[in-house]
Parts: sequence; C-alpha cells; structure tokens
Amino acid sequence: MRPIFCLLVSSLLLPLLLRADDGYRLWLRYDPIPDASLRQAYTGAISEIVIPENPRPLVASARDELVAGLRGLLGADIPVVTKATRDNALILGIPRDPWIAAVVNEADLREAGVEGYVLRRIAHEGGHRTLIVANRDSGLLYGAFALLRHLQSHQSLDNLNVISAPKIQRRLLNHWDDMNRHVERGYAGFSLWEWFYLPEIRDPRYRDYARALASIGLNGTVITNVNANAQILTAPYLAKVAALAQEFRPWGVRIYLTARFSAPIEIGGLKTADPLDPAVAAWWQGKVAEIYRTIPDFGGFLVKANSEGQPGPQDYKRTHADGANMLADAVQPYNGIVMWRAFVYSPDNNDDRVKQAVTEFAPLDGKFRQNVIVQIKNGPLDFMPREPFSPLFGAMPNTRLAAELQITQEYLGQSIDLAFLAPMWREVLDADTYANGKGTTIASIVDGSAKLQHPSVIAGVANTGTDRNWTGHLLAQANWYAFGRLAWDHQLSSEKIADEWTRLTFGHDDTAVSTINKMLLGSRETVVNYSMPLGLTHIMAEGHHYGPGPWVDKLGRADWTSVYYHKADEKGLGFDRTATGSNALAQYAPEWQKLWGNVETCPENLLLWFHHVSWDHKMKSGRTLWDELCLRYQQGVDEVRALRRDWDSLKGRIDEERFTHVAQRLARQEKEAINWRDSCLLYFQQFSKRPLPTGVEPATHPLEHYKQILRNMPGF
Amino acid sequence: MRPIFCLLVSSLLLPLLLRADDGYRLWLRYDPIPDASLRQAYTGAISEIVIPENPRPLVASARDELVAGLRGLLGADIPVVTKATRDNALILGIPRDPWIAAVVNEADLREAGVEGYVLRRIAHEGGHRTLIVANRDSGLLYGAFALLRHLQSHQSLDNLNVISAPKIQRRLLNHWDDMNRHVERGYAGFSLWEWFYLPEIRDPRYRDYARALASIGLNGTVITNVNANAQILTAPYLAKVAALAQEFRPWGVRIYLTARFSAPIEIGGLKTADPLDPAVAAWWQGKVAEIYRTIPDFGGFLVKANSEGQPGPQDYKRTHADGANMLADAVQPYNGIVMWRAFVYSPDNNDDRVKQAVTEFAPLDGKFRQNVIVQIKNGPLDFMPREPFSPLFGAMPNTRLAAELQITQEYLGQSIDLAFLAPMWREVLDADTYANGKGTTIASIVDGSAKLQHPSVIAGVANTGTDRNWTGHLLAQANWYAFGRLAWDHQLSSEKIADEWTRLTFGHDDTAVSTINKMLLGSRETVVNYSMPLGLTHIMAEGHHYGPGPWVDKLGRADWTSVYYHKADEKGLGFDRTATGSNALAQYAPEWQKLWGNVETCPENLLLWFHHVSWDHKMKSGRTLWDELCLRYQQGVDEVRALRRDWDSLKGRIDEERFTHVAQRLARQEKEAINWRDSCLLYFQQFSKRPLPTGVEPATHPLEHYKQILRNMPGF
Repeated sequence: MRPIFCLLVSSLLLPLLLRADDGYRLWLRYDPIPDASLRQAYTGAISEIVIPENPRPLVASARDELVAGLRGLLGADIPVVTKATRDNALILGIPRDPWIAAVVNEADLREAGVEGYVLRRIAHEGGHRTLIVANRDSGLLYGAFALLRHLQSHQSLDNLNVISAPKIQRRLLNHWDDMNRHVERGYAGFSLWEWFYLPEIRDPRYRDYARALASIGLNGTVITNVNANAQILTAPYLAKVAALAQEFRPWGVRIYLTARFSAPIEIGGLKTADPLDPAVAAWWQGKVAEIYRTIPDFGGFLVKANSEGQPGPQDYKRTHADGANMLADAVQPYNGIVMWRAFVYSPDNNDDRVKQAVTEFAPLDGKFRQNVIVQIKNGPLDFMPREPFSPLFGAMPNTRLAAELQITQEYLGQSIDLAFLAPMWREVLDADTYANGKGTTIASIVDGSAKLQHPSVIAGVANTGTDRNWTGHLLAQANWYAFGRLAWDHQLSSEKIADEWTRLTFGHDDTAVSTINKMLLGSRETVVNYSMPLGLTHIMAEGHHYGPGPWVDKLGRADWTSVYYHKADEKGLGFDRTATGSNALAQYAPEWQKLWGNVETCPENLLLWFHHVSWDHKMKSGRTLWDELCLRYQQGVDEVRALRRDWDSLKGRIDEERFTHVAQRLARQEKEAINWRDSCLLYFQQFSKRPLPTGVEPATHPLEHYKQILRNMPGF
Repeated sequence: MRPIFCLLVSSLLLPLLLRADDGYRLWLRYDPIPDASLRQAYTGAISEIVIPENPRPLVASARDELVAGLRGLLGADIPVVTKATRDNALILGIPRDPWIAAVVNEADLREAGVEGYVLRRIAHEGGHRTLIVANRDSGLLYGAFALLRHLQSHQSLDNLNVISAPKIQRRLLNHWDDMNRHVERGYAGFSLWEWFYLPEIRDPRYRDYARALASIGLNGTVITNVNANAQILTAPYLAKVAALAQEFRPWGVRIYLTARFSAPIEIGGLKTADPLDPAVAAWWQGKVAEIYRTIPDFGGFLVKANSEGQPGPQDYKRTHADGANMLADAVQPYNGIVMWRAFVYSPDNNDDRVKQAVTEFAPLDGKFRQNVIVQIKNGPLDFMPREPFSPLFGAMPNTRLAAELQITQEYLGQSIDLAFLAPMWREVLDADTYANGKGTTIASIVDGSAKLQHPSVIAGVANTGTDRNWTGHLLAQANWYAFGRLAWDHQLSSEKIADEWTRLTFGHDDTAVSTINKMLLGSRETVVNYSMPLGLTHIMAEGHHYGPGPWVDKLGRADWTSVYYHKADEKGLGFDRTATGSNALAQYAPEWQKLWGNVETCPENLLLWFHHVSWDHKMKSGRTLWDELCLRYQQGVDEVRALRRDWDSLKGRIDEERFTHVAQRLARQEKEAINWRDSCLLYFQQFSKRPLPTGVEPATHPLEHYKQILRNMPGF
C-alpha cells in the first residue's frame, strides 16, 4: 500500500497547496507555516493541549480551534489531555486551580477582567509551559484565538507574556437584514439568515459566522434590520431565532433583535403602542418574558424610532426617553439592554438636518434608564466618507452613549471600491469632545472611562452576506476585522491592524505585505478625493447611493437631495454652518468653534462642510478653491491608477484567484472614479464657469451622459 | 526536508480525505478511487493524454478536465503530449487524422453525428490505446466527460466501445432570473448573474456553472426570466451578457435571452410594438444585428407573450405566429431561433383553462417560420405533481414543438421536499399522442424523428442558485443531472439515471447506493400522495405555492383558485373534463378519450382530473373515494417517515455534513407532509361529511390553524 499511498498523497497535496483561494476562510487560514525551522520550533514548544475534563461549550470551542489551527499551521496533530503529562504543555487554565494562581497573580487576573486573558510562557520544572489563563470561559476562547494569531504572525513564543482585556463590554455587529433576505445597504449577496428553512434546517455557515466573530472578539449580533418587521417577535419566528442562538452560543455570541415600536398593534392586537399605556407596557413585558423563555441569553433590543418613517413614542406625544425606558423596564429583570438610536431628523423640522439629533436628544440627557444606551452614528449626517464627529457625543454627559460605525461601504464605493476604514474610525474614536475638559475622546465616552460605565456598547453595521468570501470585495474583509479589533482595543493603530490582517490573509512575503498595507492605508482618502473632497458630502446618486449625483435636486424631502448639501452657486460652494449660516457649529465645544468657524483656520478636509466658500478663495496650496477642487478629483483618479499598478506588481506573489478578484474590482473602480470626477466637475463648472486647471483630464462626454449612467441599475 | 514534508503531508491529507462535503462539486467529485487495484489498472491503462497542438478552446477544456479528473481519481499526473509516445496512450482524435479514420469508420462517425463521440479501446502495435473520437470539438469535450464518468463508475476499460450522440439539438436550461437577482420560483438562493458587477467583475462560478452544463451534455442557457425585462437588450446590459458568454463559451454553452415583446416601446422609443409595423420589424432587425456583433454565437430568443399580463402580438390584434415570425425573420440570417411559449390562458376566456393553449395555438399550425419552435409545458395546466400530457403536442403536426420541463420544484416541495423528477419526465416523454398513429410519443415529436426536424429543442426550468450546493436541497442535484442526461438521451431509464447520479455523488457503497436509489425513485409519488393524490391538482397555497391551500377561493381570477380545480361539493370531488363537463378530453386522441372518458377505466392517478366523482364511488381497492383519498394522504406521510428511516440507516456511510443536510430536510418534510394531510382532509371533510377511515391519523388542530400557518412567510 505505502508506495501507492505516497503517490496518492503527493499528487493530492499538489492541488491542495496550489489551490485557488475563494476567501471563505477569512483571516483564519491556518495554512502550513512555510519556514520549516520555525514550524519545528513551534511544534517543539507545544507538546500537548491541556484542558479541564468535560469542558463547557466555550472551552470545547477553544480546544477545537487550537487543534484545527495547530494541525494546519504545524502539520501535526497535537494531543489533547486533561492533565499535563510532559514538558511544553499548553495549558488552558482557570485561576481556581491553585497551581495557576501561583504563576498568575491577582493583579494579572484583575487586568484580564471578565472577558480578557493572560498568555504566558513560563519556566516549569526545568522545562517550559505555555498558559492561557482567564477568569471566564470566554477569556479562554479569546486567548486561544490570540495564541493562534501569535503563531500565524510568526512571533516567538519565548518570553510570551500578554494580558489583554476588551475596553468595551458589548461588541456588536448590526445587520440591516430584512426578513425576505434582502440586506439594506448590503453588497455581499443576501442575508445569511434563511428564515423559511429555520428552525429545522441550519446552514453550517451559521457556526462559521459566529466563529469569525469570536476570533476578533465580538460577542453579540443584532440580526434584524433597524427598519424593523414586527414578525420577528412572533412565536414561529422566535423559534427560528432560538435555533440561530443555539448555533452562535458555543462561540460566545449573543443575539439581539430590533424592536418595531408599533409591534403591540401589528402582532399584539392592541389599539395603541403608547409607551405610557399600561396595556402596552404589559404586552412588552409578556413578550420579553416569552423571548427569554426561548432564548435565555438574549441580549436586548435595538430600536430606530421616529426616524425616516419608523413608528415611535412621538406618535403619542411621548419622548424618546419614555419609549426607551418602557422597553428598558421590560428587559431589566433579565439584564437585557435597550440600544436607542439617535439617528433622527424630522420631516416637520426645517433646521439643518445635522443639528436635529442634538436638538431632540440633548434635552433628554439624564432621563434614560441605566440599561438604555443611546446609539450614535459617528457623524451628525450619515456615514459620509468624511464628516466631523457627531456633537451629540459631547452633549449627553449623564447618558450612556454607544458609537455606531458602518462597516458596509454604503457611501464609500460599496463592494467595488477599495476603502479600508480603520483610519476613518480612528478619527472618530480619537475625536475630543472636551465634554469633561480636554481629552474627553469619543472612545473614552463609549468605553465608560470618561464617566458613565456599564453597559458599554460599540456597534458596526455589518458588511457580510451570502457571497462566498463573506464581504463581496475580498479586501473588505479587512474592515470586518478592523472593527472587531478596535471594538476590543480602540487604541490599536490603523497600521497595526492593517499589518495584522494582511499577514493573516496573504502571508508574510515582504513585498506583498508592504504593498497591501500601503494600499489599504491610503484607500479611504482616495475615495474621499474622487467622490467628496474638501468637506463635500451627500452628493451621491439617489436611492442606491452608488456613484455621483450632485445634480439630484427633487426628492421626497429637501434634505435628501444633493443641492441641499453642496449649495453650489455662482459665488461658490459649500454649506455655511457658522453663525452666519445654520450655526450647527454652535453644537460643538468652543475650541472647535474657534478652529472650524474661521475659514482660514478650518482644516481643508472639512472646509465645505462648515463654509460656503467663493470659487476664488485662496487655498493653502495657493490655488483657488475651484482649481484645488478639480485637482483633488484628478488626484483621486490618479491614486486609483496607482492602486492598480501596486496590485499588478503582486502578480505571482499571491494565488491567481484572489489576484484576479481584486484586479477586476480595481479596474472597475478606476472607471467609477473617472465617472465621479467628470460628473462632479462638469456639474460644478456650470456654477464656477471656470476652466479646468492644467493636469486635470477633461470629461469625454457631456454632463447628460453621466446623469444617465446609473439609471441602468434595476433592482440594485 | 523529507521527514517534515511527510509529516506535513499526512496530517494535511487527513482532514482532506475526511473533510465534510458542501456539495459544490456536484457529480464532478473526482475523489480518489478507494480500490487500489482498480486505481492501478486505470493508471496502467492511461499512460498519457494526446491532444492536437494549439487546441481550440473546447479541446483545451477537455484536456483540462481529463488532467484534473485523472489526478483526482488516480492520484497521478498523467502527462499531456501532442503525439503518442508510448503504449496505453489516451488519444483525443479528429477523423481527418488518417490513422484514426482507419480504426473509426464512416458509419461510426455518422452515428456520432455533429455533437456525439466514439469511445473505444483498441489494440495497437501489440499494446493498447484509448480513443475519444468526434466530428467536432464539442464531441471531444462530451467524450472526455463520458470517459471520466466511466472511470468514476468503476467500469472496466477493456473492450470499451461506446458511440453516443444527442437526440435533441438544443438542450437548454431556462433561468427565470430577474435582473435584481430574485429568481422566480427559485429555491436555491438568488440569481447567479451579478449584473451590477459585470462586465468587469466575473465570479469564477460562471465557469463552474458552464462546466457543469457541459458535463451532462447541455449546450445552451436562457439566462433571463420569461417574465422579461427589456433592459437586458440595452447596450450596457448586452456588454454584460457578452462577458457571461465569454465565460461559458469554452464549455460549449451558448446564451439565449428572453425578448420582451414591448421592448421597441420601452427601450426603442417607438409608439408601438405591432409585429406587422415595418418600423417595429426594423427595430428588432437592428437590435438583433447589435446582439450578434456583441455575442457572435448568440442562440436566439425565448418569448412569453400575451400570457399572465405579458405584452404580445394580440395587443395589436395579431396572432402568435405574426409575432414569432417577425422575430424569427430578424434572427434567421444568423441561424438564430425563436422559442415561443404556448403557456397561455386568457383573462377573457372563461373556458376550462387547460383547454386554452390548444384553442389558441392549434389553428396556427403550419403558420410558423422554420426557425420558430413552440415551447410547450409537459402538462396543459402548470407543472403539477401529476397531470396528463399537454394535448398540444398532438395538435400541431406541421409546427416544431419543444418540451418545457420544470427542474425547480415549484409545486413539489421546492427545496425542502425530496422529489426525484426523472420518473415524471419519463411519463411525459413516453406519452403517446397518436398524432401519426400509435407510437408518436412526445419524445419522438420533440427530437424530430416523428416528423419535423431541425431545430429541435428541450428546455428545463433551472433549479440552480447562489446556494453553495447549487440546488438548495443536495439531492435536488439529481434533478439537474437527470434533465441533462434525458436531454442527451431521452431513452435512459429513471433507474439508470438515479444509479449513475448516486454513484457519482456518494460513491459505491452498496448499501448507500441501493438505499439512495430507492429513496429517489419513489420520492415523487410520495409527494403526489401527501399533496395532490388521485388526479387532484392546483390546491396549493396561493402566491408562494408552498404547502396546502385547498381553501383558496378568492383571487384575481377564478382559475388561480383551488376551488376552481377541485370542485369539492356535497356530492363529490374532481373536475369533470368529459363531454358532460368542460370536455377538455376532446383535445386528445380517441384512444385516450375512450380510456380516460370512462370513470371505470380511467387510471386512478388521473381520476379527479377528468371526473367529478362521488364520495362513495367504489375504487379498485374496494374502498370509497373518500376513504381512498384519506388513506393516500396518510400513505404519503408514512412514506416520508420511511424516507427518514432509510436515510438514518446511512449514518456513518456518508460524510457528516451531507448526512445532516439531508436529515434536517427530511425532518422538515415530515412536518410539511402532515400539514398537507391534515389541511386537505379537514377541508374536504366539510363536504364529504364522512369520518376518517381507520389507519388515518386525525389532525391535531382545527382547520383554521392550518390556514394560518403559511401566512408567516414574509418575502418568501
């Protein structure tokens, strides 16, 4: 048999090692470590895996992950035992074990906290041991992933000594998934949740999804759209949700649901949903009790109320606090929470749309229950490529506040354009509200260190779907990864996250790593340059939000149009939000008012957000606004061409399937960038009446041509 | 290096061989042949692959398939050469090669025809050679797949001598895919065609799709829904279609499109779509020229006109022939065809719906161009679990007729219930129309042997989608496979097809093969038993068509309701289609009228289709109709339970992932079967006013409960 077996093996191995990669494995690839000596060093340093007998589910998951990971990375099956039997054991320990307590002290464990872990290589009886120690099972699971990431990153095990704990308690994905499997603002296929087939029929992908979340430290997911459907709260659907919860639970991922405020009417048979009506409160209490009977570890509700047509407490002349507190009281006995979204702008409020969240919510500061978290988008408008941070973060000192970031690229090229978002999120997390004086960053408000603690929440609107590679654009996996890593540790730098992800996903070829890191780190600014530079916002095409639409002027409401936002006229361009205009600026700390209020000191990347600027205004470059604007659009196009050159230089260094996947998207992105440049410059030129400066390529078609393009997108 | 390499290899191999199977590979698995001696025998008999230099695309595909297939099956890399260099060469030959002409004679080549192949093992200079010989490249490709199937089936190569040619020229899938990626009557995810990303971005799955079609002999595909969208004919979309055609071409798969009859108005800017208006004809001629400039091997149009609200020639008082011929003249210069669907029933025609196709089309016999094929669903109603064949097949002797079969299980449990459809399709293909006397089967009419030849067409409405396993239910892959095999050779038995597919998909374990074959072959009749036994039809739930809806009585039109079809009353059950009723029977040959017209001789599986039968009618079993009906529903449920026992008996004989996938669906199917039985019996009992016979389980809920169930299906 042997010769034939070997023949069989080697030839099977060939296609395996060379095989194209469809991206399904994400950053959990566990391919063999190419360097034999390193592989041997690791194999020598991990002789067996020691876990307690009858491990609980999360520990069993940690064990399975370590076994599969080490088999892949080292090409060896590391034995699993319940007591250390030899030197170089890898031990998953709990502090109650006295032997462990001796080597991991109280302070270490306090630092590890509820969900964190200690990774430590220690000398032991003349040899060594590797420890993963945590106060809870979840910490052991996160520690196992951290150790595997350490090996995948080819770092040494000698003197391994890491203590890591998440700074924010509830690290959640928000899925804007409709129950018909359409994903609102989803660009990676369709919803992963197969409602019609549940609960009996369970896609194995549910477990892979939860495992991916756990691998980057996420511990919860809101599986339904904020534009909610009350059906999800009916008994047949709760049984389906319970099936999903069962699949997610071994990976420490809890389920949350969106609550449609009018559910008591739609599925409860009541005449009203007035939050102060005892019958309504009673209905929710009964419904919540039913939910927790079905899903004992249910996390709580996310609510979009009185926003964009959603029902809410204001329909009954009640406040957001009235509505949120009623739901909060219902989930409180089960330690559930209510995440109440502050993304509101009223049809009967004609004030600058970006001011309305503060106007509505600031007066309610301090009126919310302790298990209510007001969830705020990073900017005051709506996930634009760049906007200033939302002033609401600084306006509610006595309310728990969560940050809602958007992983899916609704306004940043969806799953065609490359846009690594960590740098954008860093801008937000580092933004100083000055709420308790200098240094009151949004990160410190969200993690509770600035003031109110527990529960703390960070939410990312998911970019996942049924596409084989999960995110549509392979490189968009980096945004999912980055959100998870920042949710765990909001002090990580964009460079660190990009380098981690690139190495996990593409290996350690120096040229490939440095090239891909460079591509990622500049990519978001590139999108800003060819779509909405210098503080322009919301000038995209209507409806699907893909591509340019500066001409959009007639929609259901003024503040849905582009002209409302760019205010282009013969004099100039931009929205005056200073005292001479909407004075949205007044919602910020004096330090910001001083900086942003002056057209001379306002950073140019926010200039047109805060000011209506004359076409001839001198920019720092010495050019006029018009010339600068044109050159920014051209720069964006040039940068996409550079991205293509960079990627093409990697041909042969990464597998053909992934190379082609990205190359095709970059080719399309160049067309779209040119489309943005030509559409916007032709449109704005109608007002500026100035020629294109040298260096800017003229459009090849008249404006009308560009207005047509995106009308050919049925169903998108 | 070697020891480490071996360690690496064996441990990588382990998960590979044991790895769960997600079904993506379909029947093209090419896993190593377990029997070492057989593997050795094959490896000895195929020493090298000989193909001509600079092979054209289809031959290159054949080469690649053979190399990949033999590597997988034999674990050996068989060298590819352009001239035979040693004994046991496998030679892909063309008859122009004189050496080949000597061993494959004229008669053989005539038999192989345009697309067929000769597979032959011959003695040569004291040794042996294996030949794949064909008149065209496509034959070499089909021959390569046939040879691999031969090896996958573990058949001997000694004395290999096969000549095979398709009996029907155009073997097509019909995709009812909307351009927003919804699939009408699709139950395997969403449309594979990513319109927004094309033409630049091309899912590798496009090639895998075309390869799968080629592997079962299909050579064309209609990629858009018969409920058509004119957008597909605009220049931007034709560029996208051309990209798909480019991906399909190396596998010999040609693209066809559905033509929306009102396209000249919607995208052409004309005031009319009147087929006799010269401007309309000219517009189509220009559009067709544009299509062929973009897609030189474009196949032609499929049209649904004046049916279910679709526009058509009757809107202008013209006939179906007027409309079809106008389009046929446009594509004729390019050898294109027009497939004109006969699925019509008019809102202003109150006659029995099943009669209307003959009423409308029979008078047009002989009036269609030679490149028009009238495409007829297998039955006169609409893909019911069982109906008699469509009488239209026998009513148009001077018109080319195509059979439209439905692979997707719209009325047979979609992708939850197991229903192997080959036995149903055999009933249709073998049905004798008596059009030219006894033996004028539908198969002989469709393949042209009965009368009119060229072009001949068979169409199957696809059951494919974005689900990883292509068809939603893993075992529904067998229906895709069966359609392809029957399209190639409509004389294959259901047993042969089932056995082929089972062995290709699950291997050769005797118990597994015989059990799965048995499950497949009985499964369609089981669905008939628990849903629409004894000739009942169209009593499913409204809209989504999943599950029972015998109570459906108020819809847009009477002939969309269930009560229209079952006619249940105090006297009895069933639709009288004899002379005393609608006399649809008169559309069939006298032989059928005699057999079906008499309630005593009418086969019981069509009894209620043709007759309104009293509840007390004595059935062949001696039971009353009511008791027989009840027992059939119970039998259906019992048979599903048997399917579950059969499948459970295979645990451990097939991989866990596929075992669980099917087990979960069978568990759900049992619930649905019980739901069918209880819903229908409770409902019909209101009329029969008779008790359930012994042996039939009583419903656990009142009728109202069952009416509610399926209302909780948002978006499905």
